Amino acid sequence: MRRDWWKWGDPKEIKHINDYPKVKAFVEERWKTHLREDFFPPKTFELPVISDKKKEQIRNIFASIYPKKISFSEDDRLFVSLGKSYYDVIRIFNGAGFISPDVVIQPTTHEEIQYILTQAHANNVHIIPFGGGTNVVGALSMDNIAGRPEIKCTVDLRNYKRMVKLDTENLTATFEAGILGPELEKILQSKGYTLGHFPQSFEYSTLGGWIVTRGAGQESTYYGKMEDLVEHVKVATPVGTLESNAFSHDASGINVLPFFVGSEGTLGIVTEATIKIKKLPKNYRWIVALFPTFQDGTNYLKTLAQSGVKPSVVRLSDANETNLYSKMSSGHETPGVLNDLKKEAQKLLLQWKNLTEPCVLIMRFPQGDISVSSQVIYAKTLVEKHKGMLAPNTIGDKWAESRFKLPYLRDTLVEHSIYIDTMETMVQWKDVPKLHQALTRELHKSAAFNKSKGIFLAHISHIYPNAACMYFTLITPMLRGREIEQWQELKDLVTNTIMQHNGSVSHHHSVGLDHQKWYKKYTDSLALEVLRSVKQKLDPKGIMNPGKLFS
Amino acid sequence: MRRDWWKWGDPKEIKHINDYPKVKAFVEERWKTHLREDFFPPKTFELPVISDKKKEQIRNIFASIYPKKISFSEDDRLFVSLGKSYYDVIRIFNGAGFISPDVVIQPTTHEEIQYILTQAHANNVHIIPFGGGTNVVGALSMDNIAGRPEIKCTVDLRNYKRMVKLDTENLTATFEAGILGPELEKILQSKGYTLGHFPQSFEYSTLGGWIVTRGAGQESTYYGKMEDLVEHVKVATPVGTLESNAFSHDASGINVLPFFVGSEGTLGIVTEATIKIKKLPKNYRWIVALFPTFQDGTNYLKTLAQSGVKPSVVRLSDANETNLYSKMSSGHETPGVLNDLKKEAQKLLLQWKNLTEPCVLIMRFPQGDISVSSQVIYAKTLVEKHKGMLAPNTIGDKWAESRFKLPYLRDTLVEHSIYIDTMETMVQWKDVPKLHQALTRELHKSAAFNKSKGIFLAHISHIYPNAACMYFTLITPMLRGREIEQWQELKDLVTNTIMQHNGSVSHHHSVGLDHQKWYKKYTDSLALEVLRSVKQKLDPKGIMNPGKLFS
Repeated sequence: MRRDWWKWGDPKEIKHINDYPKVKAFVEERWKTHLREDFFPPKTFELPVISDKKKEQIRNIFASIYPKKISFSEDDRLFVSLGKSYYDVIRIFNGAGFISPDVVIQPTTHEEIQYILTQAHANNVHIIPFGGGTNVVGALSMDNIAGRPEIKCTVDLRNYKRMVKLDTENLTATFEAGILGPELEKILQSKGYTLGHFPQSFEYSTLGGWIVTRGAGQESTYYGKMEDLVEHVKVATPVGTLESNAFSHDASGINVLPFFVGSEGTLGIVTEATIKIKKLPKNYRWIVALFPTFQDGTNYLKTLAQSGVKPSVVRLSDANETNLYSKMSSGHETPGVLNDLKKEAQKLLLQWKNLTEPCVLIMRFPQGDISVSSQVIYAKTLVEKHKGMLAPNTIGDKWAESRFKLPYLRDTLVEHSIYIDTMETMVQWKDVPKLHQALTRELHKSAAFNKSKGIFLAHISHIYPNAACMYFTLITPMLRGREIEQWQELKDLVTNTIMQHNGSVSHHHSVGLDHQKWYKKYTDSLALEVLRSVKQKLDPKGIMNPGKLFS
Repeated sequence: MRRDWWKWGDPKEIKHINDYPKVKAFVEERWKTHLREDFFPPKTFELPVISDKKKEQIRNIFASIYPKKISFSEDDRLFVSLGKSYYDVIRIFNGAGFISPDVVIQPTTHEEIQYILTQAHANNVHIIPFGGGTNVVGALSMDNIAGRPEIKCTVDLRNYKRMVKLDTENLTATFEAGILGPELEKILQSKGYTLGHFPQSFEYSTLGGWIVTRGAGQESTYYGKMEDLVEHVKVATPVGTLESNAFSHDASGINVLPFFVGSEGTLGIVTEATIKIKKLPKNYRWIVALFPTFQDGTNYLKTLAQSGVKPSVVRLSDANETNLYSKMSSGHETPGVLNDLKKEAQKLLLQWKNLTEPCVLIMRFPQGDISVSSQVIYAKTLVEKHKGMLAPNTIGDKWAESRFKLPYLRDTLVEHSIYIDTMETMVQWKDVPKLHQALTRELHKSAAFNKSKGIFLAHISHIYPNAACMYFTLITPMLRGREIEQWQELKDLVTNTIMQHNGSVSHHHSVGLDHQKWYKKYTDSLALEVLRSVKQKLDPKGIMNPGKLFS
């Protein structure tokens, strides 16, 4: 178990590289190499020993917490030390470069959480809230804690996860923040409802984590991002508990709700949230289409978004991703997506002789929505006007089957000395093709990326009338011995290019430590001061997730 | 002109009571009286004289502002002294009880506004921002200014109203905040777009006013409230200019945008706003229906909202309002709405013998939206399931003709010693009928309302999956000599009853001075402290719209 504690997800789901034969073949052919499992994390980690005296001190500070909820074990401290970014994984493989908390507390009530923060405030204990631990931009990293606090405490919310209230008359539900995606959806779906928030991390991330990172799910174009889905929050802060106004939409002055959606644990811990739920769709309608260029597909999606059409799932892959996706989706030598599509396309070969690098779009619409039929009809009609062609829907179901599985592959690749990272941004429609081209160009100049071997994949994952979320995957041979420099160089290259094209710091991954230097430039300096004044009010000693955001 | 400066709107549109013959007849019959024009404002107002020395002092403070933009005239000072609430009008009729500014400045650039605030901050000048002056809850009242500041300055934004940018590719537009509704829509509609924000005050209210009050328009169920329609703001504050993040939807930390949407001028002046625009609908589809009870109509609208159907206009009147609305809509002895409906209903008389107090619902759908047909079909089908009956659409057009005209009637009624006030709230669906019944009950106990003469009208004006906006109109004989006590008693009665039924302080009128005592109870006390810390940062001397909100 120790060997794999850092890996994604369910140990039974972890696959060997041979379970991805087409990916393996693709990479080996392109890189003219044989992939070997040659990169391993250390068997043990040397965490600082917590002395009995310090344990006693910590137990005294949190004297009202039931002792079994307080853990000093190395396993527990290790588990909450990092998130799931490439940088996190590399540091684990290097067995160094990260800081662990001294203690992990698992509260089960709001009152306990408030007590922990009150005591931490009185005793200058630094607090790192922990939900599912799936963040990929360093939200859990403690690197930036200034002045080496005496005690670093992770508040692990995974046992704080009851449903407080289900209000089917007004379509809201109130949950404790530590509930995981599947637990929340199981409760709601058993009653015929859904939140509709399905990030790739869905199986291992929590409601509270989604809120404080302003997360988006794979279906957020229809259901909305977390900033749209929260009606009310209750928050424990170092100076006490507060609640936002009863309604997210009214005219009762300034609502503090948005101060906490995106606060990344810096102001307190969101403990209870009332979320807007929807009736569970009976079924889904898929649209799959191919476009001759990424630009054509982008124009199509812009028109769709500006016509008020709201698919839940939207994924327009560029030519590279379409190509690799096709290989990957063929789990055990079953025909890949493009094969399916090409068979179909042969019928139309004459019209499609120029379609050498097709871009695939998959969209899903929730059946049961009154207007889904007219939206689907319109969306299908529009495909041809944008030089696209409709394709069989079968790959939709294939995507749905594997929608949460990609993180497993990342871990396997890293073990084979392959760098793989993902980045994303919100960008206006006019900047979508420019950013795509600029990134391709800049990556080709980068030694860390390795033009001849590096694989750059892009897709549009969310659409709005004014903008889209672009999602990028970078794969290239790992520079062994210089893993962190390689990661930082590529992170810098991609994020700088995003910034030059007016992209946001993040559309749904959040800021964390990894984006902080861009965040501080991206956000207006007086706005940062305003945020610091809020921080000063709620967390005057700076104990909450120190070093993050505007700190 | 002086005689009518306080009246609503265009002097040419002002009507005599005889222009509302059915309203007149209805009231006279019910009150067994003859309405007489017997209440007049004073011919002159005794504003404090601004000495030449003080004028010189003020001109020196704002030395960089072109002198013609600075006015000390009594007319200009009077015009910006108050908004358009019943309480405001009564104080004007009483010729007393309100405070006027010493000076009115009309800036025309962001830089000028920033300069004014910077100078005001340095010289302790109190600033009241003025948009269209249509607020109905005392947002402009200076009653609450503590410590009698030496100089009170109104910043009148009505000459600051250019379009900065129209971005049709990304469907956004940037305007200066002082632009009036018709000016803004004229520009957008000439290019084929609309903001879709049409409050009753549309003709005389400004973009900036809509934003800082979190306003809603008559079509906001479809287009969204102002908190949904703003993508970005630029704000002048006493300590400098700030801008919100580029996107309203992303994961780049806490966005300060919502701090200013609803700030009611307490933090600074929103100078430029980028708003989300939509394609102008080609036409509209109307649905008009009658329901046997308000509860049936409410259930219908709840089902509709929870099915994702979004009409732009929604107006479900209770039985009282349906009855009076019928009389009022018949401008010059043309048949009223109910007459139209009753003719139609005669065909269905047997089924409808219990329909003695019908409640009318009018809904409008923007034609051109992809899904409008399926929404209209669904909405029509659903009417019968909720015991309703479809009615002729003609009254829809009648409503549209007079949609901005009601405020004129208010002024005419006041001149005939009639109390008339409107109040509104956001309330969960489960509380809608309870609140309606409780208000009816409480008003009947109130001497100020006068059970035998008082007219209480209610309608649902906006629908959400979890809640509705309820809008109330109260009409009763004015208690001459006790006008303000009567107003306060009824305001207290209605707002206390709203609070007891979990309603919000306001859905779209905002807080102002009139709601402040409830606002301070409604908003969490630690949340108020957070807001005060933001105020302290941006306006450390408390010069911005002093005494409002959390002050």
